[in-house]
Amino acid sequence: MAERPDILLIACSETDSNIYYATKFLAPDNFIFLRARGKTFLLMSDLEVDRARAQSSVDQVLSYSEYEERTKKRGIDRPDMADVVQTLLQEQGVKELTVPANFPLEYGDALRSRGFTLSIKKEPFFEERALKTPEEVAAIRKSQIAVEEAVAEAFDLLRRAEIKNGQIYLEGKVLTSESVRSHLHLRMMEKGCIGQHTIIACGVDACDPHNEGSGPLRANEPIIFDVFPRSSETRYFADMSRTVVKGRASDGMKKLYDTVLEGQELGISRVRSGASGKAIHEEIVGLFEKKGYHTGKVGGRMQGFFHGTGHGVGIDIHEPPRISRADWILKEGEVVTVEPGLYYPEIGAVRIEDMVLVEKDGCRNLTTFPKKLEIP
Amino acid sequence: MAERPDILLIACSETDSNIYYATKFLAPDNFIFLRARGKTFLLMSDLEVDRARAQSSVDQVLSYSEYEERTKKRGIDRPDMADVVQTLLQEQGVKELTVPANFPLEYGDALRSRGFTLSIKKEPFFEERALKTPEEVAAIRKSQIAVEEAVAEAFDLLRRAEIKNGQIYLEGKVLTSESVRSHLHLRMMEKGCIGQHTIIACGVDACDPHNEGSGPLRANEPIIFDVFPRSSETRYFADMSRTVVKGRASDGMKKLYDTVLEGQELGISRVRSGASGKAIHEEIVGLFEKKGYHTGKVGGRMQGFFHGTGHGVGIDIHEPPRISRADWILKEGEVVTVEPGLYYPEIGAVRIEDMVLVEKDGCRNLTTFPKKLEIP
Repeated sequence: MAERPDILLIACSETDSNIYYATKFLAPDNFIFLRARGKTFLLMSDLEVDRARAQSSVDQVLSYSEYEERTKKRGIDRPDMADVVQTLLQEQGVKELTVPANFPLEYGDALRSRGFTLSIKKEPFFEERALKTPEEVAAIRKSQIAVEEAVAEAFDLLRRAEIKNGQIYLEGKVLTSESVRSHLHLRMMEKGCIGQHTIIACGVDACDPHNEGSGPLRANEPIIFDVFPRSSETRYFADMSRTVVKGRASDGMKKLYDTVLEGQELGISRVRSGASGKAIHEEIVGLFEKKGYHTGKVGGRMQGFFHGTGHGVGIDIHEPPRISRADWILKEGEVVTVEPGLYYPEIGAVRIEDMVLVEKDGCRNLTTFPKKLEIP
Repeated sequence: MAERPDILLIACSETDSNIYYATKFLAPDNFIFLRARGKTFLLMSDLEVDRARAQSSVDQVLSYSEYEERTKKRGIDRPDMADVVQTLLQEQGVKELTVPANFPLEYGDALRSRGFTLSIKKEPFFEERALKTPEEVAAIRKSQIAVEEAVAEAFDLLRRAEIKNGQIYLEGKVLTSESVRSHLHLRMMEKGCIGQHTIIACGVDACDPHNEGSGPLRANEPIIFDVFPRSSETRYFADMSRTVVKGRASDGMKKLYDTVLEGQELGISRVRSGASGKAIHEEIVGLFEKKGYHTGKVGGRMQGFFHGTGHGVGIDIHEPPRISRADWILKEGEVVTVEPGLYYPEIGAVRIEDMVLVEKDGCRNLTTFPKKLEIP
């Protein structure tokens, strides 16, 4: 049997997905996870120990206060966390540990000064996190259904709305990024999904890919929707972007849209087990260049296609693998976005994003939402 | 002029509140913040650089790709993040840096191996984060208003409901932890607040302080509401707990409730600038003991009062200071919870929590919600 390295995590599972993945236990403060000789342990405060025993997936949940007492018996009057962890590690006969890149420097220093050897393993810390099980794919798809239903409703608002003086009115009220976002968030929450930083960005706002958008939406200008909620139940994200124009798109916008769509379809057609993320990204960049859409700084500001083509999605919204300038080989079971975009303040902004499951000879699109530029 | 230490943060502001506090800039991936000789810098990817220039509070936003180029000119073909940070630090003449306890070990090792000296500063990393400005207090109070309106509605559901066979029915449907939680979350979202892990725990569930609760709520048993959403707009949390019984509370529950309330009022009366958090906590523990409510393990499970009395609230739900076994001296301007609890599976569970602002000679209660055990 191949020996797996002993690993130590000290983190808060509400914000650190590795410790959540390793324990399936959610808590709002730092706690301690150890895998030693293939067996998994949690060291938990009195406040969390019973809940951890009931809810976590580890082999054994130990009481922090009990180990604090044992540490005092070692002659340490006021043990700190590193002292208590040392007691556990000594008991388990562990001297060498693998820790993630974001392991807290404070505990790294404290454990090394106590004679332990720490090796850092970069992301993916748990390779298996990238390879989704059927249950994980189902969870992602469930979040995606919430996205699609909410975006369908938002587009329906746009469809029912009227254009007056370049602005968009529904039942006498002007539609804004904020009002449409609020509507989307409520609909997604009814499906158990929490949306944050949902992008509904119009015109020049949309030329900055992470601008969330604000103020009245304008007719005949691009509106980028980028919607990526997390399920409260499963903690899995979904991620989808669509670009629409309420009213009529200019010829320049139409050509921009068709080009991004062509690039996106090209990207999707290239995704399969063994494909190079870098090669896919570069092929799309090449297509855009060939069509005359250049990337670079104009007047001190980036234009063109200046983000990656895609990223993994799971219990983090951005996780391995990447489809970008970086070297990654795609593997069967990974869920990745394919989301090229083009951004020119003088023409408009387009991003189109689907989530796909990497398969042996291709990929399965987990997104079933239509792609259409104009909403009349 | 007293020289402040040069500091370096590498973190994602969506999950790390120190880098958010230092920059007021939200991004979903790691970025780099430097304070050198009192001047503040961000080093941002092409994707974020323009938005950071528009939205962040730092003196200067630098382009990561520009520094990557400068690093290549130093003779490093494929610079990693530590190489690029080194270029910036050399340019600024910085050799010694203060970093937070959770600084990533990977970058800690990489910078030390390049000759930099790192000193770790534990929480509070930015002392001023604990001392709330009037604007911050207003933001917390605004989140608290959303909590109070939503909990008032939830209690109104309980008031309108009928008891049948020990369960609680509203309009023919049984009320569950999940259905009431969903109602609360939607109401808070309408006020721009995101609730997560809201506790609506009944009976034995409530005896585990972080159990969120599940299944049908039962009449004549305690139900703990612990509600702590974050504002999407300001990112400030609020935090309130109330314990109620739909129907009639047993005599044992009434006595338990009155005791916790007495302990909570005692705690609030002791909060002032200069007070010891430890002394306040121990006085409440003493009161409970005197009334015959002991804390300790019974049948392997903790009973009594086995969590802290309170914690700071701000852009983290748990932040300094603490009112607990740990040593903390309260300071004017801090916002802390006062939330003793007592938990006995044979009697019931009670937790009552307000948020108060520490003042020179006392405190101001930011919570205006009534405390009443029974809902008829």
